[in-house]
Amino acid sequence: MSDKLNIIGISGSLRKKSFNKMLLDELFDSASGNWNSEIGDISEIPLYNADVEANGIPESVINLGTKISKADGLIIVTPEYNYSIPGVLKNTIDWLSRIKNAPLKNKPVGILGASMSLTGTVRSQSHLRLVAVQTEMLIMNKPDVYVAQAQNKFDEEGKLTDEKTKSVINKFADSFTIWVNKIK
Amino acid sequence: MSDKLNIIGISGSLRKKSFNKMLLDELFDSASGNWNSEIGDISEIPLYNADVEANGIPESVINLGTKISKADGLIIVTPEYNYSIPGVLKNTIDWLSRIKNAPLKNKPVGILGASMSLTGTVRSQSHLRLVAVQTEMLIMNKPDVYVAQAQNKFDEEGKLTDEKTKSVINKFADSFTIWVNKIK
Repeated sequence: MSDKLNIIGISGSLRKKSFNKMLLDELFDSASGNWNSEIGDISEIPLYNADVEANGIPESVINLGTKISKADGLIIVTPEYNYSIPGVLKNTIDWLSRIKNAPLKNKPVGILGASMSLTGTVRSQSHLRLVAVQTEMLIMNKPDVYVAQAQNKFDEEGKLTDEKTKSVINKFADSFTIWVNKIK
Repeated sequence: MSDKLNIIGISGSLRKKSFNKMLLDELFDSASGNWNSEIGDISEIPLYNADVEANGIPESVINLGTKISKADGLIIVTPEYNYSIPGVLKNTIDWLSRIKNAPLKNKPVGILGASMSLTGTVRSQSHLRLVAVQTEMLIMNKPDVYVAQAQNKFDEEGKLTDEKTKSVINKFADSFTIWVNKIK
């Protein structure tokens, strides 16, 4: 018997050695006492096209939507590309928003981001919060996690070495557990 | 000998009977006395992935980038998905921004949008202007073209029937010709 929360995580970066994926792993490790976690794959989701949708929403989208629907909460980690969220992430959200049972609607969501810049994804996370309004995700407000200059905060094996960031991530994990339980 | 401008247009909607594609056709018809126009295909552009990029930017991206580089100006028509630009369009811009000669940089750009809603893509166009800052596109400021309730403004054959919109599009075409020549 487990009282653990089921949490699914997706990354807006598809790169294997993505700092955002490392960040997601770190969060899931940190919360492993309270969460059963799973990574959702968005690499197989095709470009959104209403003509494709008319013949049925693709299996990769349905599978991800089903996993999100079943999960107690969703974590999105995102880089920042051209002052905003990656097209790859937005495309996934665009598809998910077309599923009839609306897997994102009223889902507790936590967002975090890492980048090599000094501003650490502030613009992309800010824009994601706007997109969340129309899709009716319930994004936790605080704490914000902006991992700036990520190249200096992870080691060769992809493990977080920065103590300050570790402490913020622990706090984020605890806050998200409370957020999910509040909404449930 | 032709003094016509070479203008390339892309649509953020991949749907065949997209109102945005109809709008682009209408603009190109309206400007045919001054522009040689071409539609750029974004339907074959893969999801952005830095690991893919490390092995070479995909041919579909390079081809589009080359066409944009050669063109005097770029027109982007965009729907609004979830309060923002489609992931499909953002993904195209993310890829184009990775090409070394930066095809979007200092390119005169005109943006227009159509939607079935009352707000006619105001949010997505507004966000596209922000993304344009980082990519250094030179988007013309005015006139704004927000085609709201597009389903009432095009006929069965996809031709624009709304006189007010036709007049705005003519004005847009003339303004864009001036804009491109000013920057050249």
